[in-house]
Amino acid sequence: MTLCISLAARPSNIGTRFHNYLYEELGLNYIYKAFTTTDLPSAIAGLRGLGIRGCAVSMPFKEDVIALVDHLDPSAKAIDSVNTIVNDDGVLTAYNTDYLAIERLLREHDVPATHSVLVRGSGGMAKAVVAALRDSGFTRVTVVARNERTGRALADLYGFDWQPEVGESTADLLLNVTPLGMTGADADALAFPQAAIDAAQVVFDVVASPSETPLILAARAAGRPVITGAEVVALQAEEQFVLYTGIRPTPEQVRAAGEFSRRQA
Amino acid sequence: MTLCISLAARPSNIGTRFHNYLYEELGLNYIYKAFTTTDLPSAIAGLRGLGIRGCAVSMPFKEDVIALVDHLDPSAKAIDSVNTIVNDDGVLTAYNTDYLAIERLLREHDVPATHSVLVRGSGGMAKAVVAALRDSGFTRVTVVARNERTGRALADLYGFDWQPEVGESTADLLLNVTPLGMTGADADALAFPQAAIDAAQVVFDVVASPSETPLILAARAAGRPVITGAEVVALQAEEQFVLYTGIRPTPEQVRAAGEFSRRQA
Repeated sequence: MTLCISLAARPSNIGTRFHNYLYEELGLNYIYKAFTTTDLPSAIAGLRGLGIRGCAVSMPFKEDVIALVDHLDPSAKAIDSVNTIVNDDGVLTAYNTDYLAIERLLREHDVPATHSVLVRGSGGMAKAVVAALRDSGFTRVTVVARNERTGRALADLYGFDWQPEVGESTADLLLNVTPLGMTGADADALAFPQAAIDAAQVVFDVVASPSETPLILAARAAGRPVITGAEVVALQAEEQFVLYTGIRPTPEQVRAAGEFSRRQA
Repeated sequence: MTLCISLAARPSNIGTRFHNYLYEELGLNYIYKAFTTTDLPSAIAGLRGLGIRGCAVSMPFKEDVIALVDHLDPSAKAIDSVNTIVNDDGVLTAYNTDYLAIERLLREHDVPATHSVLVRGSGGMAKAVVAALRDSGFTRVTVVARNERTGRALADLYGFDWQPEVGESTADLLLNVTPLGMTGADADALAFPQAAIDAAQVVFDVVASPSETPLILAARAAGRPVITGAEVVALQAEEQFVLYTGIRPTPEQVRAAGEFSRRQA
């Protein structure tokens, strides 16, 4: 039996349920289990020593693991952040499937690289988004972030512009990477003003809980095509699954696994 | 959920089934999984890094792990051999539950320390047996082993005598720690001659598969009380279980777990 695990400060069972559901559905002799650690180097040594096939990496370990693996896939190198480690007979390769999921969603939703883009946010996921935009050929990207230090640094890193507020700005693609609209304090917040939504061609929100955020609901109401955080979560997990097992589940299986993982999580 | 594991060159699922059966029976949020490794230091680091609660250690790792743990329990120190590691918040203590099981069986079967003893064998398990005899107060112990080097070394280590063959020797307690009687080439072999069995007070065979060896069958036929390898296996696993969980299952639960573990193993 092959073991895959997750490492996070606060382990969630969403990934555990997603992967175990597909292992059973596909009849794979795999098991997935969530771990936390206070000793990251020993935990990573454990991947090698125990022959653990794969490891999902969450906060606060996404950058610290870079020094502990053997190879960085371009997806992780693009943003200096790891969310997936694959162990091939003791050789550890680190990936970032958030980046891979963003790239794939832009492609599958046929978002042209000629689109102008407003990206709201400057955290770790915003970095994956901005890097994926750059590597997908987008050139007209503006990072919107109140925090000038992180916002400007992110924009500079990938050769884009920064501004502190959305204001009257519009763009073809609106991309929210802040917690605005997420369950909690900002659940009711609309990440972009209605005028920007009306002027957009596509609206993309990475918030996944709920995935029907005020931004997504407003975009749907305005008849705009949307890309949701649920798609990001499902795709990044699917990419992890493929890296661990070499098997690509069907879209229907991924959808069912995603629903199952959220239902009792 | 708490993980316990085993580390062996060739993982068996007997321990896996024994522990998982009792976890379910007792409603414990534990899981047990068998591993192998080609990198023992990394595997042991993994115990710490991943917060794995316990680890059963089999061949060929029983001695090499000593340098990798923090504390040696007297049971492991007595024979310089580890079969169980307990992880208390990153502090690893090593035990030998074979030794503990032998000690407990001698006590529970009321074998007097005044008995003379013939121990046949000079391998790792013989060491656990001879050390447990010494530490239980036995003084009249003879190690019987054709291999003079290992036999004499074992006897000398604990202050006992060595002889190469059973010959005409008799003793109150006959103790077989060779593979004689085990399924395979020596399945039909009787570890002690009939005359020695007739002259004995108690017959103890550590061979567990089958536990009804020719020696045990002959001893039963002669009306001699017996201690079987099945008892050793069950008790050592029970002691592991107690070390990992802090809970002592009932004798009936241990018996059922032992039967379950052998049935489909």
